[in-house]
Amino acid sequence: MKILQVELAGGRSYPIYIGSGLLSQPELLNRHITAQQVLIVSNETVAPLYLPQLASALGERQVASVVLPDGEQYKSLQYLDTIFDALLSHKFSRNATLIALGGGVIGDMTGFAAACYQRGVRFIQIPTTLLAQVDSSVGGKTGVNHPFGKNMIGAFHQPQCVIADTDTLNTLDDRQLSAGLAEVIKYGLIRDLEFLEWLERNMARLLLREQQALIHAIERSCANKAEVVAADEFETGERAILNLGHTFGHAIETGTGYDQYLHGEAVAIGMGFAADLSRRLGWINAGDVERILAVIHAAKLPTEPPTELPPQRYVELMSVDKKNLDGKIRVILLEAIGKARLPYNVESETLLATLNEYAG
Amino acid sequence: MKILQVELAGGRSYPIYIGSGLLSQPELLNRHITAQQVLIVSNETVAPLYLPQLASALGERQVASVVLPDGEQYKSLQYLDTIFDALLSHKFSRNATLIALGGGVIGDMTGFAAACYQRGVRFIQIPTTLLAQVDSSVGGKTGVNHPFGKNMIGAFHQPQCVIADTDTLNTLDDRQLSAGLAEVIKYGLIRDLEFLEWLERNMARLLLREQQALIHAIERSCANKAEVVAADEFETGERAILNLGHTFGHAIETGTGYDQYLHGEAVAIGMGFAADLSRRLGWINAGDVERILAVIHAAKLPTEPPTELPPQRYVELMSVDKKNLDGKIRVILLEAIGKARLPYNVESETLLATLNEYAG
Repeated sequence: MKILQVELAGGRSYPIYIGSGLLSQPELLNRHITAQQVLIVSNETVAPLYLPQLASALGERQVASVVLPDGEQYKSLQYLDTIFDALLSHKFSRNATLIALGGGVIGDMTGFAAACYQRGVRFIQIPTTLLAQVDSSVGGKTGVNHPFGKNMIGAFHQPQCVIADTDTLNTLDDRQLSAGLAEVIKYGLIRDLEFLEWLERNMARLLLREQQALIHAIERSCANKAEVVAADEFETGERAILNLGHTFGHAIETGTGYDQYLHGEAVAIGMGFAADLSRRLGWINAGDVERILAVIHAAKLPTEPPTELPPQRYVELMSVDKKNLDGKIRVILLEAIGKARLPYNVESETLLATLNEYAG
Repeated sequence: MKILQVELAGGRSYPIYIGSGLLSQPELLNRHITAQQVLIVSNETVAPLYLPQLASALGERQVASVVLPDGEQYKSLQYLDTIFDALLSHKFSRNATLIALGGGVIGDMTGFAAACYQRGVRFIQIPTTLLAQVDSSVGGKTGVNHPFGKNMIGAFHQPQCVIADTDTLNTLDDRQLSAGLAEVIKYGLIRDLEFLEWLERNMARLLLREQQALIHAIERSCANKAEVVAADEFETGERAILNLGHTFGHAIETGTGYDQYLHGEAVAIGMGFAADLSRRLGWINAGDVERILAVIHAAKLPTEPPTELPPQRYVELMSVDKKNLDGKIRVILLEAIGKARLPYNVESETLLATLNEYAG
């Protein structure tokens, strides 16, 4: 087991445990749950696989559970309310602890429910997808989607700990595993060239789910994110580099109704956009773009955007993205491979040129 | 104009302006709103009276508004969503500012919407009821109700400033004015005997809406609350004394469906309960109880509980109140007039004796 400490101000630091078989270790759970009342939030895919095991590791506590349908389209205020219903119908107090058992959607919703229930209760994340292990594990972002935009309603709320049990990745389908690798690649691209090179050499091991390779990739990803977040917990500056590919990616997800692309797939396509745009601005060269597309393809991820979204639709969708202040469109680009540049207010002609090439 | 500074850690301190004619002073608004995008949230009663005046004081900014129906029964996740709809349909960014123009319901909902929109934007409170001026102005509590309990979903989120324009009290109906006085009396009872004595002497002036008396009552109320909140922003200890009468009051409101009693009326009845219970425990005497009931009656407030709620129903409702940890019932009582005691875990027999006398 590797332990990575996420350092935050105000007593909000917490550990991430990464390893095999962690889900059923009562001592890990007991270390972080003093509550007698525990609500496990999971989804219909994950609950049958891991919920009984987790509930039994919680021992004599009063354990209740909410099982949501599986999918980004259920990450809404409406389904959030079912978590509040469960907490209140069991008369759970401010001292209760919530556990998110599932992927990023479950983590975001459970964290947001914990942030809001009685104005804030504790929660623990047990991410069961690679994407959630390398992304939602660090940063404290929680929330739900709105029909007009992704993650528009939410809160910053840090977990007590994150338990990333790599065994849970054995039940992940190949497409989900690749979607997680999109965020892993992102960390290499934005600030860790050495890790990117390691990924170029070890992608096959990751796709074969070799435990040691997975543990290393998760640990390096979380460590990179934790360093960025520690410097900028509430996203006022540096943290924005974590959004490489995301402004484009969110537009793709919103434009296609959240049900056609996995988040990681949309981000992969978005990183391709960002690479192309960085080249047009003269910051990286054509060889760099090819290398970026190659590592994305090696992870069995798409770089082709959806044919049904015209360029103008991207501009519309990107202008409501919450990274964009006062209607302007800002994106994260690369000034080199392994080095992201802070938000860049892109000219609409340059943006449309990239969009026309990729999305036209 | 009086200015009271609410001192909080982490750069969250803010001023409360109390006086006549403040609503249409652009310089006050300009001091606290740097945003170009402003959303005013109000209700159908208040908006026709003050919204045009406020919108015009905001000058050249992009101003939008949401007008909700008036009433505690609309303080729900569903109506909260209409605020998000407005923010997103106008493409308001993270830099937008929300203004709550109305009573406590509007303040709580607008503050919670501001806490959650894009994980937190700025907001300003312009409370137009006495209750909101003396209660929601200080403390940063925001949120909505749930069918199973009041204020169960929310956040701590501090405003940029509070503008308490006493002119708005001229359009308040008598019943609402009295409801506000319940909270005013509470501050005297829990920690300010001198202020309680002032209230005993000046209640008639307040009911006649004499400006100087109102300004003094609002200022003393906010100052008392600010001192308590400064010592305990996130309600882990001392702050609980602000809940005198509230655990009972919330049970009354929830048990009668939120539409029969105003919050202040329910709190007034609850303070009567609390006084009786304090006497049963031997902390105050029968004369003290009479004095407490007298000042409540002087403010034209009820002390008789609803006849349709049997004692056992109170116990059920109080056991889900969020002040109660792990199923126990804790209430705030008085160890003397002008001095509240921290949460007291009351024996169910004593509680039922009071409930039977009052509510049977």
